[in-house]
Amino acid sequence: LLTGATGFIGSACLNCLVRGDSDIHAVNRKGRGPFEGRVAWHAAELRDPDSARALIAAVRPTHLLHTAWIATPGVYMSSPQNSAWLEAGAALVRAFGEAGGRRFVGIGTCAEYDWSASKFVEDETPLRPQSPYGRAKVAMWEAVRAGAAAHGFAAAWGRIFLPYGPADAPERLIPSVIMALREGRTVETTDGNQARDFIFVEDAADLLRRLLLSDVHGAFNVGTGTASTVRSAITMVAESLGGLDRVKFGARPRQPGEPASLVADMRKVETQLSWRAKVELRTGLAICVDQAGARPS
Amino acid sequence: LLTGATGFIGSACLNCLVRGDSDIHAVNRKGRGPFEGRVAWHAAELRDPDSARALIAAVRPTHLLHTAWIATPGVYMSSPQNSAWLEAGAALVRAFGEAGGRRFVGIGTCAEYDWSASKFVEDETPLRPQSPYGRAKVAMWEAVRAGAAAHGFAAAWGRIFLPYGPADAPERLIPSVIMALREGRTVETTDGNQARDFIFVEDAADLLRRLLLSDVHGAFNVGTGTASTVRSAITMVAESLGGLDRVKFGARPRQPGEPASLVADMRKVETQLSWRAKVELRTGLAICVDQAGARPS
Repeated sequence: LLTGATGFIGSACLNCLVRGDSDIHAVNRKGRGPFEGRVAWHAAELRDPDSARALIAAVRPTHLLHTAWIATPGVYMSSPQNSAWLEAGAALVRAFGEAGGRRFVGIGTCAEYDWSASKFVEDETPLRPQSPYGRAKVAMWEAVRAGAAAHGFAAAWGRIFLPYGPADAPERLIPSVIMALREGRTVETTDGNQARDFIFVEDAADLLRRLLLSDVHGAFNVGTGTASTVRSAITMVAESLGGLDRVKFGARPRQPGEPASLVADMRKVETQLSWRAKVELRTGLAICVDQAGARPS
Repeated sequence: LLTGATGFIGSACLNCLVRGDSDIHAVNRKGRGPFEGRVAWHAAELRDPDSARALIAAVRPTHLLHTAWIATPGVYMSSPQNSAWLEAGAALVRAFGEAGGRRFVGIGTCAEYDWSASKFVEDETPLRPQSPYGRAKVAMWEAVRAGAAAHGFAAAWGRIFLPYGPADAPERLIPSVIMALREGRTVETTDGNQARDFIFVEDAADLLRRLLLSDVHGAFNVGTGTASTVRSAITMVAESLGGLDRVKFGARPRQPGEPASLVADMRKVETQLSWRAKVELRTGLAICVDQAGARPS
């Protein structure tokens, strides 16, 4: 069972999962989505715990990949909806355990970590979330682990760093730069020297699928392990579209509390899953530029 | 609003709160309890999120002291009910925030900490719960903080060490020793050299009331700061009742994973609240022995 199955991360996961031979149930609010025939779609408003429970009772999933959460750009970090999604998640965990579910995989975030740390290692770097989003995700993973221990199901947790991809919300960094440059506008940005771990959404989805179908347990970073500056990412976009002269680095201050570096340590994933990201940043950005051109503007 | 208001901790909190001049609403499953007239009682099954929401909508509390949780001796540490209480707690947090609540205080546990640590300091010692109970409590506090940040209410969290008192469940250590010695039975126990922070339930309740009515925020240990061995506590009981020769220390192995020492660091509480526990262990145990004698056996 895949929740949030038409969201940014969830739809990429669905694309991965349909290539395998598992029975797939997918849920979103409408109960409709791609791969009809291959995928059994269900309609549910998961923030209503009764709806979450009814879904689990109907599907009785052995494996649950829970990607549904608030993700509205500019809003999700501090929204009260994080509490609603946490409540929904706790209901889902409980219903899943009671229905005899075997493996629960949830989606975390690099915002769970103490951002003053110099590296981000799953079982080593302290968790010190500063936002309602980060806190609710920390709580959700503890909720999953509590349910796993009490009900006897297996659990893993993927802490996603900076996912990007063609279907990303237009307000987010990469799509907004692409659109601005296409439209001949100036891009005012920070100095751009922050180091980030940008992961192409298909890579992220591939790792999440692996977490779902493997038997590892615990938290795993979902990143590439490669540091790229925001400046280098924007520059790559601008070089492929033209208009680098219209990017004004340093025109805007950084957000308060923004860490200098946010790069996943991928040793645990490499050791336990022999997994590495496949899509280089330049390649992934080229795909974004290309597919953004295919959209109606 | 006080939840779990007839539980072991909750009833002690109610005893404290009625001495003040706040309007008090109390909830348990029956909707009945002591201090009728002084306290407005409500019936709710909080593990049903709809019931939790309806309660908050009816009372619209400014201050919420949430003590309700599974506490069944021998069961609560690993029970799936921890997930149910977490779900209930998340529902309560959300409803409280949406109803404009101002201050939420919840009850945590020393089982949230990494028990291999040598001291237990609120914002320093890593949290590394090993039980569904500890995990669910860690999750609950993150849920409270996420809700507090998103909705703009204040929040504090009391991590209780080893509470004891006359109304404690008969299966727990102190009452079971008292009863065995009264009935002339032999007490088979561990070596008893574990250092523990036993806190008299009235002291714990007094500190929780302070947390509720102050404006401090964050997590606070609820303990005495004093290390007592299990052996010394049992010896005190046996000395006052007679029968020390019937206590067989070392007759049973310790539980796997039991820490050698579990003693609260109380500096944060002393600094921010100028609070100290008042009841010495010998005094508190004498009260337990005395009141156990008053019960029908």
